[in-house]
Amino acid sequence: MTEKSALGVGLLGLGVIGSHVAARLLDPTTANAFGRPVELRRVLVRRLDAPRSVALPDGVLTDDFTDVLEDDGIDIVIEAMGGEHPALDHLTQLLSRGVSVVTANKEVVAKHGPALMAAARSSGARLRYEASVGGGIPIIGPLQDDLLANDISSVRAIINGTTNYILTKMSQEGLAFGDALRQAQELGYAEPDPANDIEGRDAVYKLAILASLAFHTTVTPDEVHCEGITALEADDFQYAHELGYEIKLLAIAQRIDGAVQARVHPALLHRETMLAKVEGPFNAVEVEGDLVGPVVFHGRGAGPAPTASAIIGDLLALARGEDSAPGVQMGQRGPLPVRPMRELETQYYLRISAADQPGVLAQIARAFGDHTISLASVIQKDADDRAGTADLVITTHPAREAAMQAALEDLKGLSVLTAVHNLLRVEAA
Amino acid sequence: MTEKSALGVGLLGLGVIGSHVAARLLDPTTANAFGRPVELRRVLVRRLDAPRSVALPDGVLTDDFTDVLEDDGIDIVIEAMGGEHPALDHLTQLLSRGVSVVTANKEVVAKHGPALMAAARSSGARLRYEASVGGGIPIIGPLQDDLLANDISSVRAIINGTTNYILTKMSQEGLAFGDALRQAQELGYAEPDPANDIEGRDAVYKLAILASLAFHTTVTPDEVHCEGITALEADDFQYAHELGYEIKLLAIAQRIDGAVQARVHPALLHRETMLAKVEGPFNAVEVEGDLVGPVVFHGRGAGPAPTASAIIGDLLALARGEDSAPGVQMGQRGPLPVRPMRELETQYYLRISAADQPGVLAQIARAFGDHTISLASVIQKDADDRAGTADLVITTHPAREAAMQAALEDLKGLSVLTAVHNLLRVEAA
Repeated sequence: MTEKSALGVGLLGLGVIGSHVAARLLDPTTANAFGRPVELRRVLVRRLDAPRSVALPDGVLTDDFTDVLEDDGIDIVIEAMGGEHPALDHLTQLLSRGVSVVTANKEVVAKHGPALMAAARSSGARLRYEASVGGGIPIIGPLQDDLLANDISSVRAIINGTTNYILTKMSQEGLAFGDALRQAQELGYAEPDPANDIEGRDAVYKLAILASLAFHTTVTPDEVHCEGITALEADDFQYAHELGYEIKLLAIAQRIDGAVQARVHPALLHRETMLAKVEGPFNAVEVEGDLVGPVVFHGRGAGPAPTASAIIGDLLALARGEDSAPGVQMGQRGPLPVRPMRELETQYYLRISAADQPGVLAQIARAFGDHTISLASVIQKDADDRAGTADLVITTHPAREAAMQAALEDLKGLSVLTAVHNLLRVEAA
Repeated sequence: MTEKSALGVGLLGLGVIGSHVAARLLDPTTANAFGRPVELRRVLVRRLDAPRSVALPDGVLTDDFTDVLEDDGIDIVIEAMGGEHPALDHLTQLLSRGVSVVTANKEVVAKHGPALMAAARSSGARLRYEASVGGGIPIIGPLQDDLLANDISSVRAIINGTTNYILTKMSQEGLAFGDALRQAQELGYAEPDPANDIEGRDAVYKLAILASLAFHTTVTPDEVHCEGITALEADDFQYAHELGYEIKLLAIAQRIDGAVQARVHPALLHRETMLAKVEGPFNAVEVEGDLVGPVVFHGRGAGPAPTASAIIGDLLALARGEDSAPGVQMGQRGPLPVRPMRELETQYYLRISAADQPGVLAQIARAFGDHTISLASVIQKDADDRAGTADLVITTHPAREAAMQAALEDLKGLSVLTAVHNLLRVEAA
């Protein structure tokens, strides 16, 4: 090894991700990849006396951010704390001071990416965030550089491993949502408080980042329509299968007529599409470019090792002085108009229960017809003789979301309708 | 647009790929992506009077390479000629002179990549070749940079769209090889002379490039074991399906005990693996890293538009002065030993015909036992009563290639054996 000066690294956060990264940086073979020694100089933690899975050199741990900020021997800081605060404040201070940062923090990047880029630009620092979406799957890099010749029309992704694990279990084993969630928690694929994942917020952050990069604009999390997976039932999977579909939590961003439409919700996907075949905790991102066509990136979307792959990849890029700006950054061309959800045009799947008696189908069909929605199929399922009701599974031809919601309101006003179980969107191949 | 000077571009070759690239560069909106005008200054062709699908400005066409080489207004040259000669000579002269090059030429990069990199390094020029493997799928970039934190143990790929189209037709429609090939030729997925594709040479070039990058070494095409798909028959697909497999032309490079083993051959793959699901002319590359686990890149592996995506992506990277070296280059750590094919350890599928009489199975089983190969299944198929023979489909537990070939020789010596149809390798998930 040549006698290069050591690369000074600071680390914010020593949870499962931070500990994995720290262990890798402390491994003596890591210096080979960097072509110089790597010195982990400071690690910021909340509590100095918490038990640790990784043995750090004396004097490295600190609970005072100033120790990291003011250490002039630190060239690059890795942020693995997660959450908006205090991470945002720390990153802003570091970048403003000229210290480059690698972050895995999807929430901060999704909400404040363009502001952080601006802080970095003004000081000559750099900000990399490959780990914020899709674990170790290279997706930020390809969008920033490799696919830059393309006009990208859509990004469709399965970017939450927790929900994909739950949906895979429900689909393959007929489990109820609650049982699948419990299994995911037992295996560590879901957190004790799973709300952020199962309600779709985690996917919203990641989609905001992907859409901002793909369309060279700024898509904020609150511009992304969001529905989680908690209302899905075993029956939905059974009927979807009969119709030739899988159900996935999709994150979709499309550029339509100069506007952006971004949404996270469960959707029916043709069984033969690549995204329908993504199983368990895996993630996949499909990018549609005008030249390249559809490209799919598939791999483990979470976990300490895959996340460390992305973080250390970013660290290597910064360390070797690849200091020219990436081909495109979030927010580069300024904001685009957001196309409201009511203007979405897609096919729908609706599962309802209604009285099992003559004339019911005509009333239901009229509610759709009144809003010029054309039905693709109506299948009667599971008659409940005692209650005198039957399940109806209805699919539509492409229709406007506004019309569909209006038809749904009309349906709810019908006395023959006993329950609306689920309205799902059908994603065309 | 700021008043930046134009980017001067030269182009070698004006076939389908070159024409598509030229049209894109001449499109006035292309300047937006580059942030400056793009001037296509010279296009080298073999015959000046050939018909052209793209209208070039006067004076751009030339049949003299010197016009490109000596035009000081040319900043970057795109090579889209294909083939080893004269492309190798042209690239060597350009790079030695300090002119950066973007190439789509898998043969030249596979055979001469490290020498061309050296020529580029000595003059300060750069060489990019994303288009040489997998069309527009980003794979060179991720291996050079994004996945650099990983110790990569294997690359498994479907990187020839022609053969994957043929195999998909044979698998899904039960076509004979010749019929599937003809269909592929009619649709333009196979060339009039398809030898390079169906005999596996095209995939060998691409695998040599991927393996060299993944393992930071030099793997030359003649170090890659190569078998094509011409011996496959409809029966093989039927039996593979019955056993739960698909048959794909796989390109596999593995690092084993400090050596590299690289091979292109048809293989049986479990139906549920991602690679088994790659259909028609699509390509996919699966990289296994110690941190990231398995990552799959999937998309259109050929065609003028996907290839132009990669070429113009490389051109953009060079044009914006991203002139630091990539994280790793072919040949970086020098050559690794090549593990010979006879040391391969894998499972096997063998289809033979033998006399349909008592004691035959015992003779066949003994031939395997003599070489300590353990059988996983023996299935008798399709007895031909008139000939008094039956097809036998045999699968083995993991065995050495050397032992398997020796057992095959012994089998051929048995008088009861009437034909050896196919010996295929079974790739474990």
